[in-house]
Amino acid sequence: MPASGGIATKPKYSFLDDYSEGAHPDLLRALVASNDTQEAGYGRDTYSQDARELIRQQVGCPEAGVFFVPSGTSANAISIASCLRPHEAVIAASSGHIVTRETGAIEAGGHKIISVVPQNGKLTPASITKAIDDNWHFPHMAKPRLVYISNATEVGTIYTKAELTALKQLCEMNGLLLFIDGARMGAAMTSKKNDMTLNDVLQLSDIFWIGGTKNGALLGEAVVVKDPKHAEDFEFFVKQQGSLLAKGRIMGTQFTELFREGLFFNLARTANEAALALSSAILQGGYELLAETETNQVFAILPLELANFLQQSFNFYIWEKFDQDRVVVRLLTTWATQPAQLEKFSRIVVTWGTAAAEV
Amino acid sequence: MPASGGIATKPKYSFLDDYSEGAHPDLLRALVASNDTQEAGYGRDTYSQDARELIRQQVGCPEAGVFFVPSGTSANAISIASCLRPHEAVIAASSGHIVTRETGAIEAGGHKIISVVPQNGKLTPASITKAIDDNWHFPHMAKPRLVYISNATEVGTIYTKAELTALKQLCEMNGLLLFIDGARMGAAMTSKKNDMTLNDVLQLSDIFWIGGTKNGALLGEAVVVKDPKHAEDFEFFVKQQGSLLAKGRIMGTQFTELFREGLFFNLARTANEAALALSSAILQGGYELLAETETNQVFAILPLELANFLQQSFNFYIWEKFDQDRVVVRLLTTWATQPAQLEKFSRIVVTWGTAAAEV
Amino acid sequence: MPASGGIATKPKYSFLDDYSEGAHPDLLRALVASNDTQEAGYGRDTYSQDARELIRQQVGCPEAGVFFVPSGTSANAISIASCLRPHEAVIAASSGHIVTRETGAIEAGGHKIISVVPQNGKLTPASITKAIDDNWHFPHMAKPRLVYISNATEVGTIYTKAELTALKQLCEMNGLLLFIDGARMGAAMTSKKNDMTLNDVLQLSDIFWIGGTKNGALLGEAVVVKDPKHAEDFEFFVKQQGSLLAKGRIMGTQFTELFREGLFFNLARTANEAALALSSAILQGGYELLAETETNQVFAILPLELANFLQQSFNFYIWEKFDQDRVVVRLLTTWATQPAQLEKFSRIVVTWGTAAAEV
Amino acid sequence: MPASGGIATKPKYSFLDDYSEGAHPDLLRALVASNDTQEAGYGRDTYSQDARELIRQQVGCPEAGVFFVPSGTSANAISIASCLRPHEAVIAASSGHIVTRETGAIEAGGHKIISVVPQNGKLTPASITKAIDDNWHFPHMAKPRLVYISNATEVGTIYTKAELTALKQLCEMNGLLLFIDGARMGAAMTSKKNDMTLNDVLQLSDIFWIGGTKNGALLGEAVVVKDPKHAEDFEFFVKQQGSLLAKGRIMGTQFTELFREGLFFNLARTANEAALALSSAILQGGYELLAETETNQVFAILPLELANFLQQSFNFYIWEKFDQDRVVVRLLTTWATQPAQLEKFSRIVVTWGTAAAEV
Repeated sequence: MPASGGIATKPKYSFLDDYSEGAHPDLLRALVASNDTQEAGYGRDTYSQDARELIRQQVGCPEAGVFFVPSGTSANAISIASCLRPHEAVIAASSGHIVTRETGAIEAGGHKIISVVPQNGKLTPASITKAIDDNWHFPHMAKPRLVYISNATEVGTIYTKAELTALKQLCEMNGLLLFIDGARMGAAMTSKKNDMTLNDVLQLSDIFWIGGTKNGALLGEAVVVKDPKHAEDFEFFVKQQGSLLAKGRIMGTQFTELFREGLFFNLARTANEAALALSSAILQGGYELLAETETNQVFAILPLELANFLQQSFNFYIWEKFDQDRVVVRLLTTWATQPAQLEKFSRIVVTWGTAAAEV
Repeated sequence: MPASGGIATKPKYSFLDDYSEGAHPDLLRALVASNDTQEAGYGRDTYSQDARELIRQQVGCPEAGVFFVPSGTSANAISIASCLRPHEAVIAASSGHIVTRETGAIEAGGHKIISVVPQNGKLTPASITKAIDDNWHFPHMAKPRLVYISNATEVGTIYTKAELTALKQLCEMNGLLLFIDGARMGAAMTSKKNDMTLNDVLQLSDIFWIGGTKNGALLGEAVVVKDPKHAEDFEFFVKQQGSLLAKGRIMGTQFTELFREGLFFNLARTANEAALALSSAILQGGYELLAETETNQVFAILPLELANFLQQSFNFYIWEKFDQDRVVVRLLTTWATQPAQLEKFSRIVVTWGTAAAEV
Repeated sequence: MPASGGIATKPKYSFLDDYSEGAHPDLLRALVASNDTQEAGYGRDTYSQDARELIRQQVGCPEAGVFFVPSGTSANAISIASCLRPHEAVIAASSGHIVTRETGAIEAGGHKIISVVPQNGKLTPASITKAIDDNWHFPHMAKPRLVYISNATEVGTIYTKAELTALKQLCEMNGLLLFIDGARMGAAMTSKKNDMTLNDVLQLSDIFWIGGTKNGALLGEAVVVKDPKHAEDFEFFVKQQGSLLAKGRIMGTQFTELFREGLFFNLARTANEAALALSSAILQGGYELLAETETNQVFAILPLELANFLQQSFNFYIWEKFDQDRVVVRLLTTWATQPAQLEKFSRIVVTWGTAAAEV
Repeated sequence: MPASGGIATKPKYSFLDDYSEGAHPDLLRALVASNDTQEAGYGRDTYSQDARELIRQQVGCPEAGVFFVPSGTSANAISIASCLRPHEAVIAASSGHIVTRETGAIEAGGHKIISVVPQNGKLTPASITKAIDDNWHFPHMAKPRLVYISNATEVGTIYTKAELTALKQLCEMNGLLLFIDGARMGAAMTSKKNDMTLNDVLQLSDIFWIGGTKNGALLGEAVVVKDPKHAEDFEFFVKQQGSLLAKGRIMGTQFTELFREGLFFNLARTANEAALALSSAILQGGYELLAETETNQVFAILPLELANFLQQSFNFYIWEKFDQDRVVVRLLTTWATQPAQLEKFSRIVVTWGTAAAEV
């Protein structure tokens, strides 16, 4: 990004991901304010205790275990390790983050992932049933024991309450635990399509996490373990996997801030609205979306020429080729997305191919 | 199998698998003959040394490492563990034994399997290339490092020399090792379609194993490690995974017998011929095969009624439904398959639906 | 051992270990007799079923799970894996087989071993209590959950019923499981000092195994899992660790033979008596034992010169230096130890340094 | 810490550990200043790049790999995983952090730790040689491959250049890698006894890390991998173990600040001087130290009564009983230790038992 030569190149504005910015200022302020006190180590500090209490209230479960870990991969690996015995397997969508973007962390922990083809990034009762049916030959096959889903999914879609209820019922009938990767739980909960609260999420799963990193925090994810017995030994896993930070205040202060007065939801809503602004512009420009924009991810089908032109001013992924002349692009927005940049992007898209396009 | 009540039911003859019988008598005799001598433990016995020497001659590589292990799953898990670092992955067919029938043993060893759709049970350069292309996003994805194939495959097909050469070249160009599961290597080497020797197999792979269990031995697979440097530490893996038997003679005597005068190939040829006899009868009866019979596995499409009738006298798997009235059945033959039973089965199939069918 | 040159060297008789010989002839005969029948695979054969039933009767627990595995290392690794969650640790003597001779198999399975100093090869309530006390700092320390002992121990001693009862009580009070490595369970049960039956062993432990390899079998150890719930998933572990042999008859026939009419105990008794004969001769010769001979292992303190002289005719380990002139030697006997060789060895020891020593 | 009852108790000043405070203000300021820019994810940000460059300069090795991870346990587990194959073991002091305080993380990664008795918390050539000699029985024993030491050690001592040189030479002669846990590397480098630079540390090891958490950072340790080939794949391990933070700036800004102008050393020196102040007072008061104070840890032998009295105003560990009337206490200091508290503590110790003790 920084020019190595003499002339400064204008850096491009990024829609690449939802972790390009630092923290929301309120979180930083809280962290700075906490700095001078002496606190107990390893998550016994008052800030972490407060944050745990706020999250327990938010999810409506005073006896739930709440654990802070520094990254999504650690949240997933630790949670899954805590649920499974060595011969037990995870069922996940082939697009799931644990399948595609965690360097085999789940397998490194010893567990097979049974991957199934998703629909709009989501698992369905039928796909889980098929995975169970295909993995019947015991003890020659690993035993399905946990279903992993993401909400919002890796392609930006969300589960409705009816969908999640159906999954949970199927899991219960088949002795399966249900685990939700909530890297973008904020985006899911504030989607216009959403009809759940975090309490619903808790009721309809066994363990899930609430992502801070992609919603305004410097780092940190909060794993919520519903069953107190399950929660009892959970911290061993956090520590064994190198995720028990000595200075718990780093995550404690930030999660306190996020859940003190609903900032968590406000930030996510802002990100979702920015995505809607982008997709509206794209539709207005006469282009199609690959999928309806439900959260903070936009998948749009653009002429290759337009995509190239946009990339002169913006960073984003060209996701895949769509046809001879068109590509799918992925655009991510956050709480920090600048309105001016949204407007600039939108203006180009809307006016492209017209006289007004001369920006 | 034995009737628990008063009346003895006639046991059915089994075409279920290729490990229903004990050992070939010559192997048993050699084992018995060895019994009274004192021998060094853990594979340092004279029988194991002789067997290793014979196998080295057979594969044409005097400096290859040869290691005996008790089962196919241990052969695969140990071999793969010896090849990979923790972040490296295996590419395998979705029908591969390590994917479908080893209780997640490879994942239990910490490694991700990238599974790809096979053609006739086989990997192709194109499918491997796609797996490489799909797993590019380092370090967020595990690094493909080993290709696992089976010869014969799990559906009874075999690799030609040209096919294996193409895979090996692709592997070398991409820094991948090639590993061959040879649970049915005997069947492959004696298939009418085969154009390779074990020396070719050695030249065109990095590590492979020669199955004893499914070809006349009580137990035992011989892993051949081409690179002496790779072989150096291999025994640590055998021991660590519980597969270094104290009394090495058990496998040493049997493999000596198998490779002393070509018995290994004779037994496999007999099994393949039995399979051909079955598939000839099936074709003669006017039924189709799901796939050409290349080794000791027959996949036939039979009317459900005929399959049911056959199951009154024979044990075999009904593999899957084919259409409204027909099913796919799997029949396995071995060196020990009884000619009289082959004839009986064939007679039923050929005469089914005719007056002669009244058996 | 065999001379590679022209002149045959007289092989030395071995007291090195208890797996130098093949199987007891009765076991071989049973294996040969089983050879021609077709049997179900993977331990579902009638021989394995019979053997399991006999062992359940012998240990006095009709609902216990019984599982056959090919080696001691696999018996230990599989048993421990089935007992522990990832953050739980094993307490073991520093002389324990899992600590010293299994290539880190337990750690390879992910578990820490807390090793404690033994007394005569044995753990005591005090040593276990200390291990618990030293490992209190949760979740920064792995949680002690299983105590591993060997009976007979690696130095040939055995646990009395009182000793084992004390350990079991301590374990129960501290939420620990008790696991017994029975590689030499036969030697323990037939020791002159023994006051337990296999039913006592079952009552006073949670999981244990009965060694075949070191007591007359070609291979095979029988793991007994007391709690049926624990036993339920055990076979997954056997399979995942490559120890579920396709032809179960190999172990089924041998264990049936061992437990049909008490052969298991007779063989072990013979081995123990051979050891007593050796140690009597040593005492008679005026030499000391490092420890009383309780099973089939003799640890004797001999003049270095005598040890060297004996090594011209016998193979055995010089275990360690004792003082300036003396060394500790280890001698192992088995059911197959030849009386003539016992006498020859004894004669040398008794007459060494006298005129009669001129052999 | 907060009183659960009605009356507020005055919080005690803590000498418990070196992570009770937040970050040094300069680090916080740098983090805050970085907040508004968009940066590339996963350690590709400009701050992390700058920090890596500064550390490469500091250790005098432009081609070394430098990797930031969030905790000491992750630094150790990742580093060791990157060095070892599955059958290879670590040699470590029984007081080493990986042995006593990481919940079996190394074993969870599959590796045996061969623990040896330390001298003053340190390994010696003799103790390593003994570990090698005791672990010779291949392949039945895991193969020693890596020596793990801590500098400063867990009891506050440091290695001299001569000592480290001797270890490194021994390692090289025996094919062992040398790895240094530098959780308190700052304290070691600024000890009055120290005669090494970070360049020496690099020269005399294969891989080491520089601790931020215990020396002024909110979180973060910098692993330095000397061999560029070793460094090549290192990031896979960081990611697989959940330690590749999305917002690299968190550690990048802090390490930049620490190494921009020597702050890292200044902070550590301040902590060491505080410890010296405490130990001077203790000596002045007529009490003994358990060991000379070399870094920021003080181990003092105090009358139990004095210790109890001090605990009314200060938090610190009573480490162990020393004799009938005396205990060993551990006191830790940091860059943030308040001079007023040092004085208060010292005053009590010096005047205890005199008239002036009436505080």
